[in-house]
Amino acid sequence: MRIASSVEKLTPYTPGEQPQDVDVIKLNTNENPYPPSPKIKEVLSSFDIDKLRRYPDPVFNAVRKRIAEIHGCEIDNIFIGNGSDEVLSVAAKAFVQNDEAIGSFDPSYSLYKTLAAIRDVKFVSSFLNADYSWTDPVISKDGIDVALFLLTNPNAPTSLSFPKEKIKAFASSYKGVVIIDEAYADFADENMMDLAIAPGNENTIVMRTLSKSYSLAGLRLGYCVGPKELIEAMYKVKDSYNIDMIAQVVALAALEDVEWMKANAERVRATRRRLTDELRSRGWDVPESQSNFIFAKPAKRPAQEIFNKLRENHIFVRYFPGEATGERLRISIGTEEETNRLLDCLLKLDK
Amino acid sequence: MRIASSVEKLTPYTPGEQPQDVDVIKLNTNENPYPPSPKIKEVLSSFDIDKLRRYPDPVFNAVRKRIAEIHGCEIDNIFIGNGSDEVLSVAAKAFVQNDEAIGSFDPSYSLYKTLAAIRDVKFVSSFLNADYSWTDPVISKDGIDVALFLLTNPNAPTSLSFPKEKIKAFASSYKGVVIIDEAYADFADENMMDLAIAPGNENTIVMRTLSKSYSLAGLRLGYCVGPKELIEAMYKVKDSYNIDMIAQVVALAALEDVEWMKANAERVRATRRRLTDELRSRGWDVPESQSNFIFAKPAKRPAQEIFNKLRENHIFVRYFPGEATGERLRISIGTEEETNRLLDCLLKLDK
Repeated sequence: MRIASSVEKLTPYTPGEQPQDVDVIKLNTNENPYPPSPKIKEVLSSFDIDKLRRYPDPVFNAVRKRIAEIHGCEIDNIFIGNGSDEVLSVAAKAFVQNDEAIGSFDPSYSLYKTLAAIRDVKFVSSFLNADYSWTDPVISKDGIDVALFLLTNPNAPTSLSFPKEKIKAFASSYKGVVIIDEAYADFADENMMDLAIAPGNENTIVMRTLSKSYSLAGLRLGYCVGPKELIEAMYKVKDSYNIDMIAQVVALAALEDVEWMKANAERVRATRRRLTDELRSRGWDVPESQSNFIFAKPAKRPAQEIFNKLRENHIFVRYFPGEATGERLRISIGTEEETNRLLDCLLKLDK
Repeated sequence: MRIASSVEKLTPYTPGEQPQDVDVIKLNTNENPYPPSPKIKEVLSSFDIDKLRRYPDPVFNAVRKRIAEIHGCEIDNIFIGNGSDEVLSVAAKAFVQNDEAIGSFDPSYSLYKTLAAIRDVKFVSSFLNADYSWTDPVISKDGIDVALFLLTNPNAPTSLSFPKEKIKAFASSYKGVVIIDEAYADFADENMMDLAIAPGNENTIVMRTLSKSYSLAGLRLGYCVGPKELIEAMYKVKDSYNIDMIAQVVALAALEDVEWMKANAERVRATRRRLTDELRSRGWDVPESQSNFIFAKPAKRPAQEIFNKLRENHIFVRYFPGEATGERLRISIGTEEETNRLLDCLLKLDK
């Protein structure tokens, strides 16, 4: 007793480094380089703190109403979590039994494996092709069913989108629940939300976050859209009051300013284009990103060496060791000025 | 597949009603009748929203440092959750295996049973005596060990504290983890924090919340203090960034104004004294509360009847049906004015 044995042997998820030094150019955790909507400033300044002595709305109706408007669905199709992390851990309780497994592609978001370990169920990887293109997910292994498949699209760290018809065909044949993690969808040419709100859909959930395109990683608000029956199961297992009152008000202000978010996403896409073209002209291999980062293979020196040299120059990017990822760097899209400094630095290093 | 069978049969926890009507006297969810520290207003107004584009401190060092100062422990002794709810669900992952059980007294906080159901493990009740006094906890049943015992002290809804020597003796003989849920400790004559920070303690965790005495139910911040080894296990299974950046700043402001909290707790205790004495003088049975509510048996009419009549008069209190609780009402301590209106109304009803 005392500590559960599954927890004793658990290796926790390692988030990207958060240096406190303000001089650092921070391109390592896919944060947005632009600030969130100024409407948030207004709601924080005018917030009546006396309200805080009361419990918040446990089912966050005002925020759900706004999300339903944005996506053209009903509030019963929407669940909100304290970050996408909580949406995922609630889904792991609601849709996975102790003798079932969670699956995802590999490479993909490395948190998924940790999530399965915390839930104390098996994790089944579906290995992508060498060019990170679609492969049919493994839905059963060693007699254990994958009850929940977590499909990041656009995928991370690869930056690529999968073809919609592949996702759709997989979801419609799959007996488990598929969550399409669309953290980066606002930076992509298309998204899969129509699969979640399609009549007759019984197993496909699309998840979004305010962390990336809405510039609100510090707020912790993720949501998902899916069939009412599945969403209802998620409400049954969530903590009673999982979104605090201030977060509800701030999220609503952000979601009422979609134009602000879209303008920032456009700026990020434009910088992504410039960075991609410039690095390609220097001989780097840069896949056509659909997200707010690129996953690029340097022309002349090993990725890890460049990662270390950039770090010495106060530019933080992300490096994932391993066969499928170790030749590349994941570089978040910064401001134009940050991108200039990155390109200048790489020009010196990548010789 | 799709929805886990344990979730399909799950009955969700029912929080107290949150009427939106401002004319209601709301004495049903043990919220504080006084506002939180005015320092919170300052930090919200001056908050730099540009920071929100970055992820928050995943281990909330500034808040933990302040909590460590308050209780005279180290930051490695402290875990913080998105409300005590999250502290409890993290503990249920960290300290309980699939073949073990969670236990608590009965009557106690009704969420605990739901927590075990969500964790999909057995729940073992230890029934208190008729006067709600201490009974030795059941630590094993039908061959299943209770790995985690949740001990609310002061207890809810009974309002009473257990003797410290009983708690201490139980904890020192118990092989599992005991969490002493001290949500109401700031309204009590004594608390058990010294058990959590005692040298040699290996299994006792004390949990606090900002929801009650700090008037911050809307914020969702609970924390616990305990042995480093257990606290470390909790960090391993929590969501990556479970406390948002604004909540960290607000919590810190509140915790830096302990005097404000203590002054409000004193006012609540004074009103509790007056309400208790007045109801006793009318023949009610009112145990000597150590919390911000009383658990009182009316003199002449059934509790449920008074509950309904109060509701018709826009006064909300809490009624828990059942043999051990059904003769009483749980009434949160309101302002002096709310208490006058409650007493006036009861004078008319309780004849």
